Amino acid sequence: MPRILYPELLQTLSRILEGKGFTGPRARECARLFAETTRDGVYSHGVNRFPRFLAMIDNGTVDIRAQPELVTAGTALERWNGRHGPGNLNALASMDRAIKLARQYGVGCVALAHTNHWMRGGTYGWQAADAGMIGLCWTNTMPNLPAWGAATAVLGNNPMIIAVPRQGGHLVLDMAMSQFSYGALAGYRERGEMLPVDGGFDSSGKLTRDPRAIEESHRALPIGYWKGSGLSLLLDAVAATLSGGLAAFEIPQDPLHEGDLSQIFLALDPSKIGAGVKVEHQAGVEVVASAGVGIVNRMIDAIQQTEPERKVRYPGEKILKTRAENMEQGVPVDDVLWNELQHL
Amino acid sequence: MPRILYPELLQTLSRILEGKGFTGPRARECARLFAETTRDGVYSHGVNRFPRFLAMIDNGTVDIRAQPELVTAGTALERWNGRHGPGNLNALASMDRAIKLARQYGVGCVALAHTNHWMRGGTYGWQAADAGMIGLCWTNTMPNLPAWGAATAVLGNNPMIIAVPRQGGHLVLDMAMSQFSYGALAGYRERGEMLPVDGGFDSSGKLTRDPRAIEESHRALPIGYWKGSGLSLLLDAVAATLSGGLAAFEIPQDPLHEGDLSQIFLALDPSKIGAGVKVEHQAGVEVVASAGVGIVNRMIDAIQQTEPERKVRYPGEKILKTRAENMEQGVPVDDVLWNELQHL
Repeated sequence: MPRILYPELLQTLSRILEGKGFTGPRARECARLFAETTRDGVYSHGVNRFPRFLAMIDNGTVDIRAQPELVTAGTALERWNGRHGPGNLNALASMDRAIKLARQYGVGCVALAHTNHWMRGGTYGWQAADAGMIGLCWTNTMPNLPAWGAATAVLGNNPMIIAVPRQGGHLVLDMAMSQFSYGALAGYRERGEMLPVDGGFDSSGKLTRDPRAIEESHRALPIGYWKGSGLSLLLDAVAATLSGGLAAFEIPQDPLHEGDLSQIFLALDPSKIGAGVKVEHQAGVEVVASAGVGIVNRMIDAIQQTEPERKVRYPGEKILKTRAENMEQGVPVDDVLWNELQHL
Repeated sequence: MPRILYPELLQTLSRILEGKGFTGPRARECARLFAETTRDGVYSHGVNRFPRFLAMIDNGTVDIRAQPELVTAGTALERWNGRHGPGNLNALASMDRAIKLARQYGVGCVALAHTNHWMRGGTYGWQAADAGMIGLCWTNTMPNLPAWGAATAVLGNNPMIIAVPRQGGHLVLDMAMSQFSYGALAGYRERGEMLPVDGGFDSSGKLTRDPRAIEESHRALPIGYWKGSGLSLLLDAVAATLSGGLAAFEIPQDPLHEGDLSQIFLALDPSKIGAGVKVEHQAGVEVVASAGVGIVNRMIDAIQQTEPERKVRYPGEKILKTRAENMEQGVPVDDVLWNELQHL
């Protein structure tokens, strides 16, 4: 796979978005979010998703001009309407607003309705942690996960992100409620591999590790069986209730028309209660350094010392290494896709 | 199993706590939380836990006189010190405080350190929902769950609760990060049953459905394998960072001395942004009724209609039925335990 230098990748995506009608600053911001996702090694939700994003602009699902609009302000809790704008720009603006509310009130929450796919959810966790905040956010999705006990998908896999800032590398958990994404299932099938653990049901309702059987039955497995099913439902209920938007079961079950999503963005400012973390990063946000710094490092040490013979990783750890490697050597992009993008 | 009328159960527990030195109102409140848990059918964390609670008062882990103390106020985010008081009373006070903050700011968060086991976590979800709030809370625990890839328990099973208010029955999810609790494993073993799905590793590191093998290896399985491991770590990191208290790996690995826990209580007030839910319940809290009411009902209908031939339940649904049955017929209490309690 060719490696494209990050600035070139960014420039190419930005140029294409400007060609679609994005203003310059919005084209660069939107392109940055796609390029950074691939730079960080989350290949499923970065440049590989870009053609689908363009198709959803063309089919009217994504309105490139729309910006989120405040619907109701409830002090530190706000309801916004995403107006079917680009999902990643809407989400970035929403977490930014939650961070501003948290700086003022200690905690801030934005509930966003009528938005589009936010691409990589972890982006908004890194955003919060880079600002010295604890971030929690989640989204609903089109129905792609049967509730426990059901055969038909009514729930979404509703990715949830939790981020804790830390000098030397944030902890960022970015997890969907299904054990394996459909992208991951396709990967196992193409490699001719079985899943390492049960990933869903076959068409006769039996648990299976066969990726093809799950692709055929459309019955992916929630994490923790009944537990992830409940968690998916509750995340969806909170998002739809607070945003006033749609729940997963109401969202079009078609990847090219998966719009009208509901999302929650929560930020908590540790520095407001004496637990600030000094975060060093390019943008140079001012954050108070204080006593809370040590505990997360000690937690990671404790986990990694239990198994000295093989590395136990914390969520987010691998990303920093991939990021450094891809910035130095170039970002891997599929050659057919890269060729296609250059001719757009 | 004998069924004890709820008022008699409450009176018996309250009398015992007064005998231990609790003031009258605190004895009744603490007794109520134990009795309600058993009334609701969560037998593992109600009256069955009461003898252990008494033992932890006797061994000094629980200080019956201690009340939580405000450490730092950060507007809608506060840090409190539980001062090793009774865990259920501390948690009730903390969620109550988060609710008050949410009524004022839309969202409120209390981070509580140095507290004791909160018994049934769902209690504080019902508390929030009864007040018309969306509630999220979680606790860390003593180390009882190995991180993914490790053999030794450094993480806790860190129960997390999410509650959404709803007329006709709240949605309340109350789930630990382990697939099965050690109490559940013991139940399967005593009945001579295998687990319905993998529940942990045997001593050779193989996934197993044999409850005894997991009890011997002490290697319970996180929900969703690597995913629940990451979620447990992040919940712990948020709780320890914001509360300034201990992380799971620092907590004594002994059920009789499992103190010094860190907890998070979040409340969000839907009525502040036009999504209030009118909640009818005994205490008669005033809540604005409005447009948000319908969506959760429609979600439940959608889930239950997918499988008309067998009931798909939502989290919290079973509890209301058990509660009604136990209030009418009496609360089931083990006869040996009941005899013991009457002679305390």
